[in-house]
Amino acid sequence: MGGDFAPQNVVEGSLDALRSTSNRFQIVFVGQEDRIRAELDRHDTRGLAFDVIHASEIIGMEDSPTAALKVKRDSSIGVGMTAQREGKVDAVVSAGNTGAVMSAATLILGRLEGAGRPTIGAFMPTEKGVCLLLDAGANVDCRAQHLLEFAIMGSIYASYVMKLERPKVGLLSVGEESAKGNEVTQEANELLAASELNFIGNVEGRDILKGKAQVVVCDGFVGNIVLKFAESVLDLLRAKFREYAAKDILRKIWTGLMYRTLKRVLRDLDYQEHGGLPLLGVNGITIIGHGGSTAKAIKNMILEAEAFARMDVNSHIKQALAAHSMGFR
Amino acid sequence: MGGDFAPQNVVEGSLDALRSTSNRFQIVFVGQEDRIRAELDRHDTRGLAFDVIHASEIIGMEDSPTAALKVKRDSSIGVGMTAQREGKVDAVVSAGNTGAVMSAATLILGRLEGAGRPTIGAFMPTEKGVCLLLDAGANVDCRAQHLLEFAIMGSIYASYVMKLERPKVGLLSVGEESAKGNEVTQEANELLAASELNFIGNVEGRDILKGKAQVVVCDGFVGNIVLKFAESVLDLLRAKFREYAAKDILRKIWTGLMYRTLKRVLRDLDYQEHGGLPLLGVNGITIIGHGGSTAKAIKNMILEAEAFARMDVNSHIKQALAAHSMGFR
Repeated sequence: MGGDFAPQNVVEGSLDALRSTSNRFQIVFVGQEDRIRAELDRHDTRGLAFDVIHASEIIGMEDSPTAALKVKRDSSIGVGMTAQREGKVDAVVSAGNTGAVMSAATLILGRLEGAGRPTIGAFMPTEKGVCLLLDAGANVDCRAQHLLEFAIMGSIYASYVMKLERPKVGLLSVGEESAKGNEVTQEANELLAASELNFIGNVEGRDILKGKAQVVVCDGFVGNIVLKFAESVLDLLRAKFREYAAKDILRKIWTGLMYRTLKRVLRDLDYQEHGGLPLLGVNGITIIGHGGSTAKAIKNMILEAEAFARMDVNSHIKQALAAHSMGFR
Repeated sequence: MGGDFAPQNVVEGSLDALRSTSNRFQIVFVGQEDRIRAELDRHDTRGLAFDVIHASEIIGMEDSPTAALKVKRDSSIGVGMTAQREGKVDAVVSAGNTGAVMSAATLILGRLEGAGRPTIGAFMPTEKGVCLLLDAGANVDCRAQHLLEFAIMGSIYASYVMKLERPKVGLLSVGEESAKGNEVTQEANELLAASELNFIGNVEGRDILKGKAQVVVCDGFVGNIVLKFAESVLDLLRAKFREYAAKDILRKIWTGLMYRTLKRVLRDLDYQEHGGLPLLGVNGITIIGHGGSTAKAIKNMILEAEAFARMDVNSHIKQALAAHSMGFR
């Protein structure tokens, strides 16, 4: 349980996920049992495979991640992650406090063998389908070796979960030439070029939405800023249309007529549609959703986690990291 | 002369600027004289104050900036900048090769007293008017002190040229709290907080378009990526509308009807409308335009340069830098 619309959206999305896959897996709800049971009672759950683990405490969106994990020993995030470490569940999906989910995963599950830094991937809509941008904010100061690791982990994830064959990897920088960039990206460019990844070279800010690369690598400082900037674009557009409509009544009617089309076109660009952010480089599976996740987003996150587990992505990542570290370290 | 549409757009925009201000200043065209004269002959130039300085060579958009400046000794960029150093003109406006214009300005005009690094500012549309983002790509690796200088120079520019009273300065980072960010922004936050600027603290990627700050400060690596990303958003929107329209004939007609409104709303977001990018921290005035600058963009760039000169912005910047360096160094 977690997010601004728990338990409603979480329960609804979870049950939808079970139905859509004919019970291929089981769902374990972690949180305040009475509230979860009450919400479940509002749905037709006959024939659906799920269970509930009680956790009495809630880490709020405003709580400081590490402090909250220490003080609230019985939070749904902590209890769920511990259940994963003990093998009771294979993956944790949460729309709760991003920092707390990430800290709990790193502390309780531990790092994946060979991974220097866990990283969060984020999805971006492009002219040619969705791309994976990482790091999305977990690591603000990075060395070149970290960027290489992000690229390796992102490529494996894109291959197995996003079903992209030899995904094209781009290094986010300020010019296409390999010598363009800051000190870290210049060094990372060399490491990536020498790797076995399908590295297409540097990509610029304008290349992300064009879909030039399917995996875009950068440090978490740049990634977080680009991601949040991108999320705010739709708000600006909505504001501009409102401003336009406010000028006279005819315009108001006209934009009203356009509204459905606009909504439809802009929907493709909404990050919500693409489920949650995978946390890569930890010894387990964690998908982190937006606090405002809809039932549909929750469903997509669960299906994403299930594919992550079914394809045994972490074993592939471990192998790839080991193969690369032989060459470089 | 410079840009993809020289001399047509340059001449048209320049003459418009002269007309709109009743010859408050004079324009000197620098470039291949015969081509400029031929273009001028196509306009009614009676009563307009302008002159032409011949420059035989052209630095193309694909030329390497520093190499081209060395080899092409008689380029319009070099000749124009030299004319400024010699006091024949007060400002240079160019839609040519950005790197070459910047290098020429730095080499020929030199740095402004007290400025460690020249910086390029860029305009961003926001929900509350235009904001100035800097550095937009001149300095990929920055120290905290450089970010403070960018903030000082940007504030002065915003006050005098953009007419913003005590412009709100934000430091681009990954969280609002002063401790959030990478090593450089954490240190810069302290410097800015201790300065006399109207510093509102860290701003996040999502705050730029909301217009939370009027001057947004970051290193040139982040600034360049955000700026190019922003420029590409309209392309993605256009692609999405085309994709939507392509599905059936009714939709095609419908989006055709919507087209004018869309164009009008999106026009506000087009960087072209806001003229050129000011180069701050050099001992002179340089406004750099987009290669595809329209006549309107050229006109806006010239008016911007004229305000820059008339308000004696560089003297104010020198004073502000001197005042701050006493407190900090």
